[in-house]
Amino acid sequence: MPVYQAPVADTLFILNDVLGLERYSNLPGFSDATPDIVEAVLGEAGRVAAEVFHPLNQSGDHEGCTRHADGTVTTPEGFDAAYATFREGGWGGISADPEYGGQGLPHTLSAAINEFMSSANMAFAMYPGLTAGAIAAISQHGTEAQKRQYLPNMIDGLWTGTMNLTEPHCGTDLGLLRTRATPQPDGSYRISGQKIFISAGEHDLSENIIHLVLARIDGAPEGVKGISLFIVPKFVLGADGRPDQRNGVSCGSIEEKMGIHANATCVMNYDDATGFLIGEADKGLRAMFTMMNEARLGVGIQGLAISEIAYQNAVVYAKDRIQGRSLSGIKAADKRADPIIVHPDIRRILMTIRSVNEAGRALILWTALKGDLSHVAEDAAERQAADDWMGLMTPVIKGVLTDKGFDNAVMAQQVYGGHGYVREWGMEQFVRDARIAQIYEGANGIQALDLVGRKLALNGGRAVQAFFAEVAAFCEEHRSDEAMAPYTKAIHKGSKDLQQATMWLMQNAMMKPDNAGAASTDYMHLFGLVALSYMWGRMAKVAQDQLAAGTGDKAFLEAKLVTARFFMERVLPETAAHLARISAGADTMMALEAEAF
Amino acid sequence: MPVYQAPVADTLFILNDVLGLERYSNLPGFSDATPDIVEAVLGEAGRVAAEVFHPLNQSGDHEGCTRHADGTVTTPEGFDAAYATFREGGWGGISADPEYGGQGLPHTLSAAINEFMSSANMAFAMYPGLTAGAIAAISQHGTEAQKRQYLPNMIDGLWTGTMNLTEPHCGTDLGLLRTRATPQPDGSYRISGQKIFISAGEHDLSENIIHLVLARIDGAPEGVKGISLFIVPKFVLGADGRPDQRNGVSCGSIEEKMGIHANATCVMNYDDATGFLIGEADKGLRAMFTMMNEARLGVGIQGLAISEIAYQNAVVYAKDRIQGRSLSGIKAADKRADPIIVHPDIRRILMTIRSVNEAGRALILWTALKGDLSHVAEDAAERQAADDWMGLMTPVIKGVLTDKGFDNAVMAQQVYGGHGYVREWGMEQFVRDARIAQIYEGANGIQALDLVGRKLALNGGRAVQAFFAEVAAFCEEHRSDEAMAPYTKAIHKGSKDLQQATMWLMQNAMMKPDNAGAASTDYMHLFGLVALSYMWGRMAKVAQDQLAAGTGDKAFLEAKLVTARFFMERVLPETAAHLARISAGADTMMALEAEAF
Repeated sequence: MPVYQAPVADTLFILNDVLGLERYSNLPGFSDATPDIVEAVLGEAGRVAAEVFHPLNQSGDHEGCTRHADGTVTTPEGFDAAYATFREGGWGGISADPEYGGQGLPHTLSAAINEFMSSANMAFAMYPGLTAGAIAAISQHGTEAQKRQYLPNMIDGLWTGTMNLTEPHCGTDLGLLRTRATPQPDGSYRISGQKIFISAGEHDLSENIIHLVLARIDGAPEGVKGISLFIVPKFVLGADGRPDQRNGVSCGSIEEKMGIHANATCVMNYDDATGFLIGEADKGLRAMFTMMNEARLGVGIQGLAISEIAYQNAVVYAKDRIQGRSLSGIKAADKRADPIIVHPDIRRILMTIRSVNEAGRALILWTALKGDLSHVAEDAAERQAADDWMGLMTPVIKGVLTDKGFDNAVMAQQVYGGHGYVREWGMEQFVRDARIAQIYEGANGIQALDLVGRKLALNGGRAVQAFFAEVAAFCEEHRSDEAMAPYTKAIHKGSKDLQQATMWLMQNAMMKPDNAGAASTDYMHLFGLVALSYMWGRMAKVAQDQLAAGTGDKAFLEAKLVTARFFMERVLPETAAHLARISAGADTMMALEAEAF
Repeated sequence: MPVYQAPVADTLFILNDVLGLERYSNLPGFSDATPDIVEAVLGEAGRVAAEVFHPLNQSGDHEGCTRHADGTVTTPEGFDAAYATFREGGWGGISADPEYGGQGLPHTLSAAINEFMSSANMAFAMYPGLTAGAIAAISQHGTEAQKRQYLPNMIDGLWTGTMNLTEPHCGTDLGLLRTRATPQPDGSYRISGQKIFISAGEHDLSENIIHLVLARIDGAPEGVKGISLFIVPKFVLGADGRPDQRNGVSCGSIEEKMGIHANATCVMNYDDATGFLIGEADKGLRAMFTMMNEARLGVGIQGLAISEIAYQNAVVYAKDRIQGRSLSGIKAADKRADPIIVHPDIRRILMTIRSVNEAGRALILWTALKGDLSHVAEDAAERQAADDWMGLMTPVIKGVLTDKGFDNAVMAQQVYGGHGYVREWGMEQFVRDARIAQIYEGANGIQALDLVGRKLALNGGRAVQAFFAEVAAFCEEHRSDEAMAPYTKAIHKGSKDLQQATMWLMQNAMMKPDNAGAASTDYMHLFGLVALSYMWGRMAKVAQDQLAAGTGDKAFLEAKLVTARFFMERVLPETAAHLARISAGADTMMALEAEAF
């Protein structure tokens, strides 16, 4: 069975030494996040993830969820007990509003915890993960009464949440949405329609399920401007606030999928279900994007999470499996062969994954911190800058870290040779589970379009210009630092490619939007590589300073520098290929008629 | 359910117009392969693949194989009837020796047919596929008596074959092999040991299964120099040549795998089984490599095959699914949205897959033709040159086309969005099935080492120098041809990167072999890209000539030129990143101690 150990030390290095979380101790939430508390919370989260959730990962995949004839859904054996542990630990409320029972710690911390839990058992972690998205939507768009009705039990975990967007004919293009909402005299709505691909749509872990549902109010405009968001509880609450009448929503079937078998993906049928408008009528997309942005960061975290556990298990096998001899001479003379970690091509895989994971973790936590600062920073300009970063990086993190997460899971599986293809070793599950992260919450092609078509130009390109300036300032600041040269030179080259690509887009995409579409996926990956390289630059600087000062764990810090160099030498050079593809434009790509395919 | 149509027209274009098969009509085998015959055979093979084998692909995946308590194994429903059709059509003997009942047509033709059958149902095609490997080994290394005993029934398909190499502790490193062979007074051997991952090791499709088994004769030297190859039939033949006594070989279990569920992957237990030495004692590796080279080309074909069917289904969905509007203006005004094939990022996926598939098909058929010529060409120098090409390209085709095949299946799945993750659409099966091709018959890292560590330097680099010279001559020949410039310039640039990488290896890998290992996978892919670009150059030239002459299908030929340009603009630029990684050397990669992982 696969192993897992939460990367607590690496996370603490990023939070304490790279991000300097203590600097923000004057801000709400951060004041409680002292280094001691952070270490204790992460340690305990890692323990629960490894000891309680992880042992159910493989069995949950094998068993899957079962839908019964009455429409109820049973999760795999052990999930209910594990979920009880999750609730008892208060893990669902770590960064939720204390007003409604949360612990009010920074979201930066819950992002880190989310990684551990998604590594340990992604399908399990999705149940509370979707609840978190629903909590965010209600917190930001609900009335005070709605917040009091729903949030405390959702934060507690007694109730869970879902997002209901997709319909059979309508995924990316929400303008095609057909689910209807008919106003009732009491101010509620009757919701009717069918939603598909609803993760955690029905299950046996919680007393009530709070569905957030996109629908069109009778007479609303066509397209995306006529969509509203509704709260549709599985059990409508009674006057006492407790679940009362069973609502007209039911699970019609669950999908047979490639992976995440332990999470029920439901067809949800709404048949005159009672719903309550949340936020303004016809402005449902705005509210939905609150959930989506939360969810997209969460999906990016899943990409990292699977990559991390796949890496850990590839390392175990690479040290254990003996096969062949090192090209540079026998390493394990007492054995009939050397452990395969001596072979450069195995090292290439391990170092590639590791170099992406560690920078990916830094980018996620950095961005989660910006998310916190966008709400609580004292200075309005700082809040805005943080929000700009958050908006810019969300599609990059979602798209790039899930693509890399999948590729990394595949590479880690490759280390096992034939054993990687066999279910009992668990490596193929990581590949199957990681695959969904590239698809849901907006397929990665949509993330790329969000970046290129929306985020780049937003506010006159303010966010992207600030990012370029920050990276340039970092390179400039350490220009005369000999030891930093291997990093800053590479970052500078990568970001030159990125700026050239950005310039190309500005010059070529206005007149011909297909040029933007044709460039989008490459641009997103180019952007991601530069962002990751910048993270490595910051981490390398901290590592060098600590080594010079003689503080910190020497082996840990030296490994950071080696891994940073590896990233610059072996991963970052891909920027040039992305730039070449982008500059090729759309003409050849679009030249054939559809009939020619 | 997924669709499939064999790419007969594209295959004929390559065979007739690019390879000019008719030029070889003076050679044995080729004389029967007239254009009419070739077209008829391919048409019928495509029909059988699409109509008989393909309908069982998804059901076979769902049902899988079943091992019963008595050790027998049942294939999925319908497989026996389909196999009967395969036998009746004589498909197993297309290119086998007429002396033993084969039809003696060129292997080039059976490679094309193998693609169709692997697209239609890879798990099914593996049963005869492994038989073909065993036939090759017996044909080349068996005694005349052994050939007469086994070949006719294997070529007929009445009996099937297997390859037994891997043991639990020994995959790549065959020197660790433990299966023992004890000589008997009658000249036979008693074989004892356990083999794992034996595809088609036990099943209900054939009357007898002829296992080819690597084992160590008592007292033989340690390591790879003490390995011999044995024929171990499931039923030992009686004096009449018919299956008689049940041999001491049995299937202990079948593996639960990620994919190819319809092919039984067996643990085979040999318990004093009767075996017959094939080829010389202690020279088993040589005989095994006959099977392996055949098998490796076959696995490369599987990479192409899955990529092709995944592409075809991505196209169907991209034309059918409506979602969003074209960035360059509404295309389907009569519908509520445009078909997603209008979106550049969808086109990027389709064109990428297509541009790799069509060149991959050319490279496979080109190489299969060299395989034929290495045996039947009249001139010894031509035979040697053909054999050089074959040896050089085998690891490239296996490694690169299976890596690309998997990536392409993943991209094609992405076109389906959430539906791609759901089993009923069939796209996720292609991903799961394609994955094994990167692993078995030598994981792709081993192919890369075979290329860099063995094939490059063989005979003073004769094969690689001939390849470089051929590509250079092609670019030079069309240098002044304006219309060919978009192709030849790109090929020239790609091959310059390849030559620079080769030079780097020569200068840096002798003294420090880890530099070769660290470069190997990138070098293999760089090599593959250049080989594919050369195929595109040849195909573009033919297309241009035919367009100028007004012969051929105009739309088909114009699509070839567009696809060739796309490859040059969007796929080939990756060579630069590979070169950068190769030139980085092994130092950083190998810097960390194993404990640091």
